[in-house]
Amino acid sequence: MSTLGNSTNIFWQECQVGKIDRQKLLNQKGCVVWITGLSGSGKSTLACSLSKELHSRGKLSYVLDGDNLRHGLNKDLCFKPEDRAENIRRTGEVAKLFADAGLICLASLISPYRKDRDMCRAMMNDSNFIEVFMNMPLELCEERDPKGLYKLARAGKIKGFTGIDDPYEPPLNCEMEIKQIDGVCPAPIAMAGQVVSYLKGRGFLES
Amino acid sequence: MSTLGNSTNIFWQECQVGKIDRQKLLNQKGCVVWITGLSGSGKSTLACSLSKELHSRGKLSYVLDGDNLRHGLNKDLCFKPEDRAENIRRTGEVAKLFADAGLICLASLISPYRKDRDMCRAMMNDSNFIEVFMNMPLELCEERDPKGLYKLARAGKIKGFTGIDDPYEPPLNCEMEIKQIDGVCPAPIAMAGQVVSYLKGRGFLES
Repeated sequence: MSTLGNSTNIFWQECQVGKIDRQKLLNQKGCVVWITGLSGSGKSTLACSLSKELHSRGKLSYVLDGDNLRHGLNKDLCFKPEDRAENIRRTGEVAKLFADAGLICLASLISPYRKDRDMCRAMMNDSNFIEVFMNMPLELCEERDPKGLYKLARAGKIKGFTGIDDPYEPPLNCEMEIKQIDGVCPAPIAMAGQVVSYLKGRGFLES
Repeated sequence: MSTLGNSTNIFWQECQVGKIDRQKLLNQKGCVVWITGLSGSGKSTLACSLSKELHSRGKLSYVLDGDNLRHGLNKDLCFKPEDRAENIRRTGEVAKLFADAGLICLASLISPYRKDRDMCRAMMNDSNFIEVFMNMPLELCEERDPKGLYKLARAGKIKGFTGIDDPYEPPLNCEMEIKQIDGVCPAPIAMAGQVVSYLKGRGFLES
């Protein structure tokens, strides 16, 4: 029995079927691929392409998209600093559950602050947290502006927008970086290929 | 683009690999088995036994245990009424994600209030929400008292304890009920067998 945060009289329930068993069933290892970067840097594109590539190899993945979660789990949160942190904390906790379930969890969130990403990493076994930095220039992201948000931010209609009037803190020790080569962005399938190679090399695509 | 709750400028991101594809990979259908009942009624026992039975059939399930979630996702919540409701809301949202990922999600929570359980049901396709009521007499649960909590509640050391000084509202239209037969509790494997039969009969154990 333990007292945790605001809860008392909480027990930990252990089941006979554990992560190892689920991984055997799926022939893969559960982990979290945490994709971070500016709005418009291609996070969702990578996550979707990656889920397609993994699926074609018979691997089970699931995308946790920051925006999508705000339709459900995180719909009580807004964009003030403490809510942004809580948004990322909850996403990290859910990603951890998916990894424990044996899935390759693809978390796609701007997650601009280093300390929030590091908090998520600290929740789980470090080797199961693969931070992928979409290292694209702000100018490119702003030119793409797929959601029209940079325009709104520049016009002052959105406050605290990452890259405009709120900082993005690039990772210092991420596992992977996706960037332009000679000023050209890799195609989605090429970006996904990079991550698949990494996962394969580290043994995540077998149990 | 939409405004949702406290969030604005939120888009919905759709991927090419969807629930149907994941279900084909797993040869099962994603759903939520929501196990409700008094403390000591056997919820966790059923969830664990069920995960074992499903695993032995090559089916992927994952247990969301109310107490376990309070160690992570819900560690900011206590047991006051609004936090209890939020605890259940978040669990429902996460269970929905697991079902969408193609898993048979086994949610095990006292979830004493009808409106909270119905809120979770309303989050998803009704046919994918299977409410299992552990219909055990309070006297039996209190006699078992596996966590020693009834004793504390009777001594006034825990306030608002379900069944003692806070109500348990039994389901009115649950999909399944587990109860004593001639005053005898079914063995865990028998309880699990009941649920497996239900899932099989409804086509959840094939894609």
